[in-house]
Amino acid sequence: MDVDLSKTAGKPIRCKAAVAREAGEPLVIEEVMVAPPKSGEVRIKIICTSLCFSDVTYWRLKVPPACFPRILGHEAVGVVESIGEDVHGLSEGDTVVPIFLPDCAECIDCKSKKSNICSKFPFSVAPGMHRDGTSRFTDLNGEIIHHFINVSSFSEYTVVDVANLTKIDPAIPPNRACLLSCGVSTGIGAAWRSADVEAGSTVAIFGLGAIGLAVAEGSRLCGATRIIGVDINPDKYEIGKKFGVTDFVDSTTLGNKSVSQVIKEMTDGGADYCFECVGMASLVHEAFACCRKGWGKTIVLGVDKPGSELTFTSAQVLHSGKTIRGSLYGGLKPKTDIPTLVQRYLNKELELDKFVTHEVGLEDINKAFDLLLEGKSLRCVIWMDK
Amino acid sequence: MDVDLSKTAGKPIRCKAAVAREAGEPLVIEEVMVAPPKSGEVRIKIICTSLCFSDVTYWRLKVPPACFPRILGHEAVGVVESIGEDVHGLSEGDTVVPIFLPDCAECIDCKSKKSNICSKFPFSVAPGMHRDGTSRFTDLNGEIIHHFINVSSFSEYTVVDVANLTKIDPAIPPNRACLLSCGVSTGIGAAWRSADVEAGSTVAIFGLGAIGLAVAEGSRLCGATRIIGVDINPDKYEIGKKFGVTDFVDSTTLGNKSVSQVIKEMTDGGADYCFECVGMASLVHEAFACCRKGWGKTIVLGVDKPGSELTFTSAQVLHSGKTIRGSLYGGLKPKTDIPTLVQRYLNKELELDKFVTHEVGLEDINKAFDLLLEGKSLRCVIWMDK
Repeated sequence: MDVDLSKTAGKPIRCKAAVAREAGEPLVIEEVMVAPPKSGEVRIKIICTSLCFSDVTYWRLKVPPACFPRILGHEAVGVVESIGEDVHGLSEGDTVVPIFLPDCAECIDCKSKKSNICSKFPFSVAPGMHRDGTSRFTDLNGEIIHHFINVSSFSEYTVVDVANLTKIDPAIPPNRACLLSCGVSTGIGAAWRSADVEAGSTVAIFGLGAIGLAVAEGSRLCGATRIIGVDINPDKYEIGKKFGVTDFVDSTTLGNKSVSQVIKEMTDGGADYCFECVGMASLVHEAFACCRKGWGKTIVLGVDKPGSELTFTSAQVLHSGKTIRGSLYGGLKPKTDIPTLVQRYLNKELELDKFVTHEVGLEDINKAFDLLLEGKSLRCVIWMDK
Repeated sequence: MDVDLSKTAGKPIRCKAAVAREAGEPLVIEEVMVAPPKSGEVRIKIICTSLCFSDVTYWRLKVPPACFPRILGHEAVGVVESIGEDVHGLSEGDTVVPIFLPDCAECIDCKSKKSNICSKFPFSVAPGMHRDGTSRFTDLNGEIIHHFINVSSFSEYTVVDVANLTKIDPAIPPNRACLLSCGVSTGIGAAWRSADVEAGSTVAIFGLGAIGLAVAEGSRLCGATRIIGVDINPDKYEIGKKFGVTDFVDSTTLGNKSVSQVIKEMTDGGADYCFECVGMASLVHEAFACCRKGWGKTIVLGVDKPGSELTFTSAQVLHSGKTIRGSLYGGLKPKTDIPTLVQRYLNKELELDKFVTHEVGLEDINKAFDLLLEGKSLRCVIWMDK
């Protein structure tokens, strides 16, 4: 690859990418053309990317909003190669994390400390860029290749809106920085921002995948003293311990008792915070049932199938004083909270190393899919230059 | 009446009460016997009481948990006549507000600043006293008369658990103090404690009955700058203005638009806080729909019929970052927050006078029911000695 940045600005770049050409079929490593960034956009050279379950979901999906051919990938770190017009605050050579959730820094939401849901660029799974809806990718036959949630990091180069880029301290190793793009940040943020977990409190986490384990890490950072993991796989207890999980409930071995009954008994009334990280309405109900009356908060992180409903009786809500809250990207504000997490990693407070279970080169990206589907990996880092 | 307190302690008191003998039938003013307080209980002389809609609900209800004969009434102020064993912090002659929600001051919830849902004495609509389940009321034939939600204030004397009594500064007039027992406090607390309304924010209130108007008063106290009232009765706008309502939506005149659409348009995206004060699941859904994405909070105060369900799609909760919270007694802690409200009234910050639209003597208590059922009163104060 070895592109000289000064020579590529303003011109298309020909580089390698892993293209999803058909739903569920192995990605194809091929050469693609990446157009220069338009106004408000930035072209970045990806250093490494990691595989998140949302990539798998959109890779397998056969119906809209899926579309092919597409360059998936949305957890990554890269370096700015060139910038379009009207891009402020970024320069060539800056280390950046692309993030699927826009942060325009201008709208009422982005200016507010209380919201991470940009009004200028609503989060979208549309196949093109924010501002004009078109693609910056073509294959060598000139056919358009679609973008994926404003990132498309399974390519040596990609174009990203400046609203979706956060500049970070390059001192953090790339294979740690990329984790902060999506899943791990979502879990940490859910504990830190959405729930605001208090020191000394008790947390219950439904589902100990990467997101659930990140909730444990975030809860540990916030000073939670009891972190109860719930999963159907008993092996998750040992894994969870590394992330601060102190107690484990194997939900397949409870006999007549519900998970919520067991957790209420374990905690003498309920957990202070419950996190649903699987994406099942029934688990949200269990989480709500065992968060503590009076002050318990249930945080919904898991993405259920479209149309899935959460139902509570009016009395359950009214008489319990409990809170239910949704958490998109953990409630984190990309441009301000991610640099903070980077700093906490560099300060050796936030532990990210344990999330990386595998590392491969771009040529082996399909192995990353296999490992995740087989439940063998938490995060597999894909290096672009290996 | 004119009972010499020193001579009555330890003995039954014969006094007047308004007894609900049959569902929906006028209360009967008759003489009853009020037994001395047992351990943990206090006998109080009621000065005045006001009528809340929950009294009407339980008066009309023909099936359990309704029971007859019963002494209704739960908004009141009184003076301690005598105390049972193991009562600390109260003495004869103290001015007290009885409150249906227990505050034992000992359990984990009552000790916590975050909860107002006592674990020692769960809120109950059972007909007897907390600790032994029996009644302190009999009629002159010796027949038991049941208690009502730990207060039963439609009597010259009543026995209340110490957990349900809050000592207050007697400088507040009785016909203002009694309002703090239930409805008005619930509304003020919902804005102050459950929602924690920020200065400068926008509030939408669904239902401008006494509770909704108290939410407006609470929001005003918290510094909300825009308070939108929603009601099916257009007369409520003029009434609402006295309580700080700045905008009004008559939900019967919106044509094809939903209330939530209208409020989103009025507020450029949604209200910061929405309060459902009617008790209709459909209104909770409208409130949730028009509280602002990113940080909006929907507070559920209205009591819907048993089994009524609140349903949200998983995506509505997850992608909105919105919060739903139930609010029982406005999230207020009786023993600490009510004295604060009294002080704010005495400081001329909290306005209570405007809630009192009518005042009658005990003999005319059935007029208070008529006025409330006809929608003519917000609060009718019933004086025991008039």
